[in-house]
Amino acid sequence: MPLVTDLDVLRDIATRIRIHSVESTAAANSGHPTTCASIAEIMSVLFFNTMRYATCSPRDPSSDRFVLSKGHAAPALYAAWIENGLIPAPEILKLRQLGCDLEGHPTPRLNFVDVGTGSLGQGLAITAGMAYTVKHYDKIDARIYCLIGDGESAEGSIWESIAFISYYKLDNVVLIIDANRLGQSEPTAVAHNLDLYKQRLDAFGWNAVIVDGHDVGALVKAFDDAESVKGKPTALIAKTYKGRDFPGIEDKENWHGKALGKETERILTHLRGLLKYQGDLKYTIPKPLNVAPQVNIRNITLSSPPSYKLGEAIATRQAYGTALVKIAQTNPRVIALDGDMKNSTFSEQLKKFDPNRYIECFIAEQNLVGAAIGAACRDRVVAFVSTFAAFLTRAFDQIRMGAISQTNVNFVGSHCGVSIGEDGASQMALEDLAMFRAIPGGTVFYPADAVACERAVELAANTPGVCYLRVNRPTTKVVYPNDHHFEIGKATVVFSSPKDQVLVIGGGITLQESITAAAELAQQKIYVRVLDLFTIKPIDQQAIIKNAREVGGRILVVEDHYPEGGIGEAVLSAVSEERDIFVRKIAVPRVPRSGTPAAVLDYYGLTAKHIANYIKDILKK
Amino acid sequence: MPLVTDLDVLRDIATRIRIHSVESTAAANSGHPTTCASIAEIMSVLFFNTMRYATCSPRDPSSDRFVLSKGHAAPALYAAWIENGLIPAPEILKLRQLGCDLEGHPTPRLNFVDVGTGSLGQGLAITAGMAYTVKHYDKIDARIYCLIGDGESAEGSIWESIAFISYYKLDNVVLIIDANRLGQSEPTAVAHNLDLYKQRLDAFGWNAVIVDGHDVGALVKAFDDAESVKGKPTALIAKTYKGRDFPGIEDKENWHGKALGKETERILTHLRGLLKYQGDLKYTIPKPLNVAPQVNIRNITLSSPPSYKLGEAIATRQAYGTALVKIAQTNPRVIALDGDMKNSTFSEQLKKFDPNRYIECFIAEQNLVGAAIGAACRDRVVAFVSTFAAFLTRAFDQIRMGAISQTNVNFVGSHCGVSIGEDGASQMALEDLAMFRAIPGGTVFYPADAVACERAVELAANTPGVCYLRVNRPTTKVVYPNDHHFEIGKATVVFSSPKDQVLVIGGGITLQESITAAAELAQQKIYVRVLDLFTIKPIDQQAIIKNAREVGGRILVVEDHYPEGGIGEAVLSAVSEERDIFVRKIAVPRVPRSGTPAAVLDYYGLTAKHIANYIKDILKK
Repeated sequence: MPLVTDLDVLRDIATRIRIHSVESTAAANSGHPTTCASIAEIMSVLFFNTMRYATCSPRDPSSDRFVLSKGHAAPALYAAWIENGLIPAPEILKLRQLGCDLEGHPTPRLNFVDVGTGSLGQGLAITAGMAYTVKHYDKIDARIYCLIGDGESAEGSIWESIAFISYYKLDNVVLIIDANRLGQSEPTAVAHNLDLYKQRLDAFGWNAVIVDGHDVGALVKAFDDAESVKGKPTALIAKTYKGRDFPGIEDKENWHGKALGKETERILTHLRGLLKYQGDLKYTIPKPLNVAPQVNIRNITLSSPPSYKLGEAIATRQAYGTALVKIAQTNPRVIALDGDMKNSTFSEQLKKFDPNRYIECFIAEQNLVGAAIGAACRDRVVAFVSTFAAFLTRAFDQIRMGAISQTNVNFVGSHCGVSIGEDGASQMALEDLAMFRAIPGGTVFYPADAVACERAVELAANTPGVCYLRVNRPTTKVVYPNDHHFEIGKATVVFSSPKDQVLVIGGGITLQESITAAAELAQQKIYVRVLDLFTIKPIDQQAIIKNAREVGGRILVVEDHYPEGGIGEAVLSAVSEERDIFVRKIAVPRVPRSGTPAAVLDYYGLTAKHIANYIKDILKK
Repeated sequence: MPLVTDLDVLRDIATRIRIHSVESTAAANSGHPTTCASIAEIMSVLFFNTMRYATCSPRDPSSDRFVLSKGHAAPALYAAWIENGLIPAPEILKLRQLGCDLEGHPTPRLNFVDVGTGSLGQGLAITAGMAYTVKHYDKIDARIYCLIGDGESAEGSIWESIAFISYYKLDNVVLIIDANRLGQSEPTAVAHNLDLYKQRLDAFGWNAVIVDGHDVGALVKAFDDAESVKGKPTALIAKTYKGRDFPGIEDKENWHGKALGKETERILTHLRGLLKYQGDLKYTIPKPLNVAPQVNIRNITLSSPPSYKLGEAIATRQAYGTALVKIAQTNPRVIALDGDMKNSTFSEQLKKFDPNRYIECFIAEQNLVGAAIGAACRDRVVAFVSTFAAFLTRAFDQIRMGAISQTNVNFVGSHCGVSIGEDGASQMALEDLAMFRAIPGGTVFYPADAVACERAVELAANTPGVCYLRVNRPTTKVVYPNDHHFEIGKATVVFSSPKDQVLVIGGGITLQESITAAAELAQQKIYVRVLDLFTIKPIDQQAIIKNAREVGGRILVVEDHYPEGGIGEAVLSAVSEERDIFVRKIAVPRVPRSGTPAAVLDYYGLTAKHIANYIKDILKK
């Protein structure tokens, strides 16, 4: 977009952004005014000249989008939306107060924020996912602008996204590096050696341009030029100063993350003196170029019901691939992303069905997760992310921020537990349930068989919040009929008799071993009940308590996971206020070893033989 | 090192490495022989010409070191240590069998392995920490060689380490990229465009050289040349072929991660035909250049006992900084690493005391953690890593692998929980206890006050395995006398009477609020006991059960954490087999908001007023 707003107006808006930032952080007595000051001109030019968007409809999918990756500059973002009229100005004086959505860092509680930011280095992956969706699924000309700090450019996640965006030639991305030289506790590693950034970005295939980040005219031109660069993304390396236009504070250390305190009035007086205009300003916000297509991602269903035989041996990871294709057949907005594990996780099934709906993210799990969250923003796609469950730990911070971002991305972790066998501990997820259970508002599925897995995929596609499916590498036997009805938070008794004395709870492999143990014990006239939780979170508290009481208050939980945070503790939480319930937890107690799946499961006591012994031991008490 | 072993011998060793890799993976019927084949010459030249090391003493701190970041090529590493005589050859035919330490991916169960690898992208951070220690603490000329895969170079963590190693001019590092073109499920993003790697590494300040990875003479020369490059690290971009010398398989897709099956004999026959020599080979392994200094990192103590007044308000994060300096005063090998948060975590106290023992890692938490693990290898330093606890989630995979690596690194997470207030959810660690509890063999400290915190630091410095200290941003009152004796796994009753009816358990802020609640309730003749766990893992099961029984089996747990995996579930696990114990868990139930610490703690029900009400409610039951 060429110049459409007067440069003096853009300068005044930048100053007003600084004033809002200083006033609001002073009122809150905390925050990052110097960080806001370095980006004031960038924000002014983007929001009042360059970006095409609808002020009245901040989540309009047709609009250009802006991601403030350096979330601690939140007041500058809020100020822009004050100046364009969305937020009443006095609101910002409630910054950081309980109950005010203008929080310390931006979250989607605000309708003009797509994702929560504040843990650095994540915004560019979000941008990558948005840009991919806009270009390849919505097929419109909207552009995505991402502002990162220079300190934050040290995050490896940024470089994963830089590689991804360039590999996919996402020329609708503009990255702005706010190179204000100063980190929190000392100058950044690169400081103002801006050529270094340029060399690195050039080498990663970007159109990298150094620009004076406080010169509104130069910024207008740089953004306009970026639009004409095709086939590669553009990065503006903006030379800025922290605390710009705060005399005595500008470019000085020890001013990170604090309100200006006794300097506040002096700085405000200075800033007000810089204003050319009083009252309303005349500016132009360009309209979006195209209209994004209508999209419906509700009520997604499998194209056909599960079709297995009872007792058939099939891995739940394979059922995931089958179900993914089935929901993709009924909804054109189902997509999958993977980190070069697609032939192990079976996400390649979707690639085979429709290559356009599979995004290869290579071995870069942080960008993988962030790109999925970005892609799913504004309800444009239903995204499934898969890789080995152990490697999802690589993106714990992104998943955590995903919950803050109110994302609906679905995660599928394969190769969980010691049951993978020979590859050994580095590839065995034994803490994934602990991780995903701790995601607020999340749903954790642990399908027992292929039938349950297909339905879990279908339910996840329709369930808000972070969903996680834990799937197995080895085969398990089909235990459910194809027409079984599954619900989130609803457990099923899969083995029982009227004389049961112990309630056994397992998941995946250990559920199957528990059924085997129960059947064997029944031959010995020892009767136990086996419960399949289906979802570990939410957990079917009612079924657990009812069945536990019916068997005399004895529960045995056996899980292919470390003892902390998994099924055992989920069950304990469910019965915590019940007296008279005894729970014995069996889990993997230490870093496991390599071996065949059968040998390793036996060694760590997770097979039917051991389960039978645990049960006998409990009955002795 | 110039050529010291005959080139034909080096070629034969490379072939022998291939033969071992094929035979062992065939015996295991799993593994990655084609991945081993691409690095055979690199391994041969490193282990039989270039590296200076003592075969008989694989963890000799004076030796050059090798980190196999692409851990799935483990058989090639094992083969090298067979050929140099450390391991008997037949041992490798037990590859991946339960009980054999030659596991699917390398772990330090083997004395020639420093760290577990297999989750990709982590070895270069390990290398960075080793190289920093060797250069700045041991002050010897040992060199560190790190071999990564080309697929793995997509991991952002690699680029964090590339930036770190160049920033600190660690010219004792040689990175080798095994550019074999093929990932697991398709070609890598860069494939054989090796100039791209060179441009990127050049831009990051490395001496980057493209070399034929199958030409032993070229490799000898490249490694030798690297040694003469001062002030910058060297990267060799080795052009290789996956499945090299496996006719019909070399450079073909769909051969990742599988034994050669029915092709095995054909390939072995071909490989044996390439051998020039039979029987013992003549080679030279150069000796280390210097002798590393003797180091003692046992029995570390505070230079002076804690010195606080009861009731004094001081943040545990500040006590961490004080204690860090105190142990640094008594042991010259105590170091600290931080990610540009040192003025918030108080790790800057160590920098002020001795700048040489503080390593600034900037905003790159994965390299921060990996570098600490690398630094601590071979017992050279006692490393403390600090940042906001929320940001340690960024390195969950590194910490998880740290446990597999048997690391002794200590982690300090500040700014935990909603009690940080205004900054909001992105900065609040509410899942850190879940994360660290799930680390096998780990210890989780949650010091209640400054006295406890100083002793926790001292204990952590001496405790094997991953230690985690959760510290608070706000001040808390000193509740312990300076001479209180703390032990891991030993709880202390901090408030009690003979008539107690409820056992209240909190941590940090909530412990303090619980004490206040207990004191207020005592005025109303309602008596409760307050227990400080000190360590959440291991947990003082005996004290919990004993005290719970004494108060009628009623436990209230109040924690500034999400409900899953924290103190509440740790307590539940401790009492799981006890009937007649009721546990009520109070935690932060959803993504929290910004606000003042007091307002937010009140809003989420974590203050004394609320705790008093929970207690009254429990007593009604």
